[in-house]
Amino acid sequence: MTPERLADQISFLVEADKLKTIARRTPLSDASRFENSAEHSWHLALAAIVLREYAPADLDLLRVLELVTIHDLVEIDAGDTFAYDVGGQETKAAREHAAADRIFGLLPADGTAYVRRLWEEFEEQETTESRFANALDRLQALLLNSRTSGGSWRAHDVTRAQVLRRMAPVERALPDVWPFVVGVIETFCASGVIRTTE
Amino acid sequence: MTPERLADQISFLVEADKLKTIARRTPLSDASRFENSAEHSWHLALAAIVLREYAPADLDLLRVLELVTIHDLVEIDAGDTFAYDVGGQETKAAREHAAADRIFGLLPADGTAYVRRLWEEFEEQETTESRFANALDRLQALLLNSRTSGGSWRAHDVTRAQVLRRMAPVERALPDVWPFVVGVIETFCASGVIRTTE
Repeated sequence: MTPERLADQISFLVEADKLKTIARRTPLSDASRFENSAEHSWHLALAAIVLREYAPADLDLLRVLELVTIHDLVEIDAGDTFAYDVGGQETKAAREHAAADRIFGLLPADGTAYVRRLWEEFEEQETTESRFANALDRLQALLLNSRTSGGSWRAHDVTRAQVLRRMAPVERALPDVWPFVVGVIETFCASGVIRTTE
Repeated sequence: MTPERLADQISFLVEADKLKTIARRTPLSDASRFENSAEHSWHLALAAIVLREYAPADLDLLRVLELVTIHDLVEIDAGDTFAYDVGGQETKAAREHAAADRIFGLLPADGTAYVRRLWEEFEEQETTESRFANALDRLQALLLNSRTSGGSWRAHDVTRAQVLRRMAPVERALPDVWPFVVGVIETFCASGVIRTTE
């Protein structure tokens, strides 16, 4: 350990503080304001701890918690790309890779490589842990939308097909939770918040 | 798994959303507003991942991440008790135990016991993991204060002795980081933000 190494780690942690100012499209459950990406990441960690029984028994929960903690850091530069924004989704990868270079690059080289590998694992969606983390990411937004009279679904006039596609990772990684998710979606379709026509 | 079990877990996760509305006394690094306890907990998880090399080699990082994720949940009912508020500290334990009963009690019985044990471990400060988590809690507040011209130190006219006492867990759990902490404190003493007289 050198003072320079610690200074780089501190610089990274202070830069990461900016994630608390990145607004998502999902309201808090009391509808008082939009959620930010830092508190959202915390909520996913809590969900991972509470819902781990729905994942395969050999799940590496440490890896899941690391993934959810770092998965949105690139939004400090790239912003939060709204799930139902087609144009934004097309440029998302390039914006986020540039952000990863700059933000993770604040760490000492071994730290940069470690955090980058975590972020890539989340993005690639090839491991049990990253699929569980991604399913929680989708489920958590559904919970907040369902407690705020439709939240971002209502605000952006989304269709049942869009929401079902968005929630598909839950069906794959948390099959026991899927009937609950479908029940919520159908309730909001029945009340007209989610459109059932294209 | 039963629908009732999942419903209880979901109720807990929705209730936990309120932690995003609990304000701390520490400003964000851009001084735009006070930090809330949910995003603070996320920041501690990130710090645990980045600074794990300063903890003993046998540290259980999973346990640390679980501890920091749940450690402030009782504030949903009990509020954030300011570090330098003597009166508040005296009633803190009773308020927080009642909060733990209600909030953790939303979970199925095994989940209640699991989360309560995590919270008690953090409070008791007897394990390597809880001491590391607590040291990060103190260090993170120092980082934000140091980037906001003194933050809560300036706002509440604290003394060097108070800040050194508050930061003592860092000396114990992160001895290699302690010289950095002392350096920050002395800088703010020299500039008059932290009082050097009682």
